[in-house]
Amino acid sequence: MTPLLPSSRDKLLFTPGPLTTSLSVKQAMLHDAGSWHFEFNDLVARVRARLLEIAGLAAQPGWEAILLQGSGTYGVEAVFQTCVPPNGKVAAFTNGAYGNRILQMLKHARIEHVALRTPENLPADPQALDQLLKSDLAITHVAAVHCETTTGILNPIGAIGEIAKAHGKTYVVDAMSSFGGMPIDLPGRGIDYLISSANKCLEGVPGFCFVLCRRDALAACEGYARSLSLDLLGQVKGFQTNGQFRFTPPTHAVLAFDQALTELEAEGGIAARGERYRQNHQVLIRGLAEIGLRPYLAPEVQSYFITAFEYPKQRQFSFPDFYRNLSERGFIIYPGKLTQVDTFRIGTIGRLFPADLQQLVYAVRSTLQEGMGAPPP
Amino acid sequence: MTPLLPSSRDKLLFTPGPLTTSLSVKQAMLHDAGSWHFEFNDLVARVRARLLEIAGLAAQPGWEAILLQGSGTYGVEAVFQTCVPPNGKVAAFTNGAYGNRILQMLKHARIEHVALRTPENLPADPQALDQLLKSDLAITHVAAVHCETTTGILNPIGAIGEIAKAHGKTYVVDAMSSFGGMPIDLPGRGIDYLISSANKCLEGVPGFCFVLCRRDALAACEGYARSLSLDLLGQVKGFQTNGQFRFTPPTHAVLAFDQALTELEAEGGIAARGERYRQNHQVLIRGLAEIGLRPYLAPEVQSYFITAFEYPKQRQFSFPDFYRNLSERGFIIYPGKLTQVDTFRIGTIGRLFPADLQQLVYAVRSTLQEGMGAPPP
Repeated sequence: MTPLLPSSRDKLLFTPGPLTTSLSVKQAMLHDAGSWHFEFNDLVARVRARLLEIAGLAAQPGWEAILLQGSGTYGVEAVFQTCVPPNGKVAAFTNGAYGNRILQMLKHARIEHVALRTPENLPADPQALDQLLKSDLAITHVAAVHCETTTGILNPIGAIGEIAKAHGKTYVVDAMSSFGGMPIDLPGRGIDYLISSANKCLEGVPGFCFVLCRRDALAACEGYARSLSLDLLGQVKGFQTNGQFRFTPPTHAVLAFDQALTELEAEGGIAARGERYRQNHQVLIRGLAEIGLRPYLAPEVQSYFITAFEYPKQRQFSFPDFYRNLSERGFIIYPGKLTQVDTFRIGTIGRLFPADLQQLVYAVRSTLQEGMGAPPP
Repeated sequence: MTPLLPSSRDKLLFTPGPLTTSLSVKQAMLHDAGSWHFEFNDLVARVRARLLEIAGLAAQPGWEAILLQGSGTYGVEAVFQTCVPPNGKVAAFTNGAYGNRILQMLKHARIEHVALRTPENLPADPQALDQLLKSDLAITHVAAVHCETTTGILNPIGAIGEIAKAHGKTYVVDAMSSFGGMPIDLPGRGIDYLISSANKCLEGVPGFCFVLCRRDALAACEGYARSLSLDLLGQVKGFQTNGQFRFTPPTHAVLAFDQALTELEAEGGIAARGERYRQNHQVLIRGLAEIGLRPYLAPEVQSYFITAFEYPKQRQFSFPDFYRNLSERGFIIYPGKLTQVDTFRIGTIGRLFPADLQQLVYAVRSTLQEGMGAPPP
C-alpha cells in the first residue's frame, strides 16, 4: 500500500461509515487510557448519559444506553442473541441487505423467524405485519431496519411500532444509519431496543456500537444469552456493577466518540446535523440530475443519509473505472448492493458540507465526460 | 471527567492492555480510511500477511490470519462458536479468570465441556488431560490459556499439545498476552487455533483481535457457526472473496496496527521485544523485592508479561489509596483478580522500558512509605 496522504488531504468519504470525521475527533485518540482506570470509567458513564440525552431519554426513567465492542452488526445480533427466549420467534421486515442480514443472524443463532419482504424500492408494509401477527401467535419479536443502507430507503418505523405494540410484541429497530441524523422518539414509536453505531451520524470512529433499550425489557431476558461476548444483559450489568466494559474496550474509539458528541452539541444537536445532511443530499441530487443521474428510489421514501443511483445509460460506463477516477480526484464513493439493478451509492453523512458535495458533483461530471464519453443528454 | 493530560504526559499504563503505545502508533489513526476502498483492502491483506510472518508461518502452507472486530474474548469465543460441531465437547484447562471465561462462553453457547482445574498458582497439568482423554471419548477439542493474565502464570502449551495431538483432538490456545512477546511454534506445538489481540505484545490499540489457524481445520467447520458476527469461517471467506471485513472494520485501529508491526520489526522482532519485556520484569521484581513485595507465583512459572504481587503485610495498606497515589504520580497499575489471595498486578508490556519500571519502583516505595506507613523490613 502506498502511504496515505497527510491528514489535511485525506480523500473524502462519501460512504455510509466509516466516514470522514473531524481532525479533532481523531486527535482525541492520541491518548492511551487505562480501561480499568477511574478516569476512563467516568468517561464511559458520561458517554452513556449523553447518548440518552441525545435520544431525548435523559428525563424518562427506565432507559439504558449500552456500549458494545464490535461493529453495528454485533449490536443488532446481541439484541437477538440476548433477548429472544428459547421458544421465541422473530418477524423481521426486509427490503435490502441489512434486513437480510437480520434473517441471516437469526438463522445462525437457530432462532425461529419469518421474513416480511417488500421489493428493494418499496418501504416495509405495516399491514402485512398486522396480518401476520393475527395468524402466527408464536411471534414474540418484531424487527425493522429504519434506514436500509442498501438503497437509503426510510421504513415506517412508527406505523410498524404501533402494530407491534397493539399485539404486545417486543420491537427492535436497527437505526444504524439514521440515529443522530434525525430525531427518533423511542417511547412514542414503541421501540424496546434501538441499535446504532459510533461511526455513523454521530461522526465518531468505528470500534463499538450501542443499544438504547428499556431496562425492564432487557432485565427480563436473564439466562437467554447464547453468546458471552454478545450478552447485552451481562454488558449492562458490568456497567452497573463497576462502570466498566466486561472485556477490553476500544479505549481510543471511546475517547473519539466523546469528542464527537461535543461536536454534535456544538453544531446544534440532531436537528442542525440533520439539516446539514439534508442540504448535502439536495446539492447531490440536483447536481447529478443535471448530468442525467437519477436516484433509484422515489423521492418520498428516500432518506438524506445515503442515495443509490442507477448506472448511467452510456455504453462505456464501467463502475471500477468510475470509482478509480473519482478516487484519484480525492473522492471515495460506495458500490451498490442491490440484487436487481446496477447502482452505486453516495453517502451524505460525516464531516461533509454542501460545498464538498458540490465538488463531488463536478468530479462526477468531469469523470463521465472525460473518462467514459459524454453523459447522456 | 477532567481533561486528559497532553500526549507526552499521559500516565504510563502498567496493565495487560490496553497499554501504553508509541505516539507514532496513535498518530497513524489521524486518517479516515474507506472500509471498502482498495487502499484499505491492501492494508488489511498486508497486515494479515505480516501476522503470519511474525508467527513464523509465512513459509508454511495452509495457515490463515483472520482479523475479527471486538476484544480478544470475541476471538476466543469465535473459535468455539464456529469450530465445535453440534455434538462436540471441549476439555478446557483453567487456573484463573481467563480459563474460567472459556468455560463461561462454552456454557453460553450450550457447548458440552469439562474443566481441567489447577490452583491459581500451579500450571495446567498435561497428565490430567491424558487421563481425561482416555476416559471421555466424546471430547473433540482441547483449550488452554498460554499466559493466564490473572497471575501471569505460563501454562505448558507444548506438553498439552503433544497429548491433544496424540489423541487426535483439535487444539485451541488463547495466547492473548503472550503472542508477540515470545516465540510460539504453532505447528510444533500442535496448535490448530491461536487467538491474540492487537493491543497486547504487538503494541497496537484495541478494536480487534486475530486468530491464526490451520486453513483445513477451519474449512471443515462449515455450518457449525452459532453466531453471524463471530462466524470465523464467514470472516475468512470475506477476506478471500473481496479482501474485506464482512462488517464495518475498526479502520483506525487497523491503521495503528500496521504501524505497530513496523515498529516491532524496527525493534528486532519478537526476540528483541521479549528481551525488553524480560528486562522490564527483572527491574520490577528486583526493585519491589527490596521493599518486601513478593510475586504471588514461584519464579519458574512466572511470565515476564504481567506479575501479581501479594498485598504488603503492613496494616495500613489500602489498595484504592495505593492505586490512587500511584495514579497521581502518573503510574497506572492493575487490580488483582485472584479468588483466594489479595493481589495487585503490574504489567511490563507495551511501550515501556526498564527506566519506566525503575520509576514505578520508586513511586511504589515512596507511596508505601509516605502514604501508608513504612514498608515491612
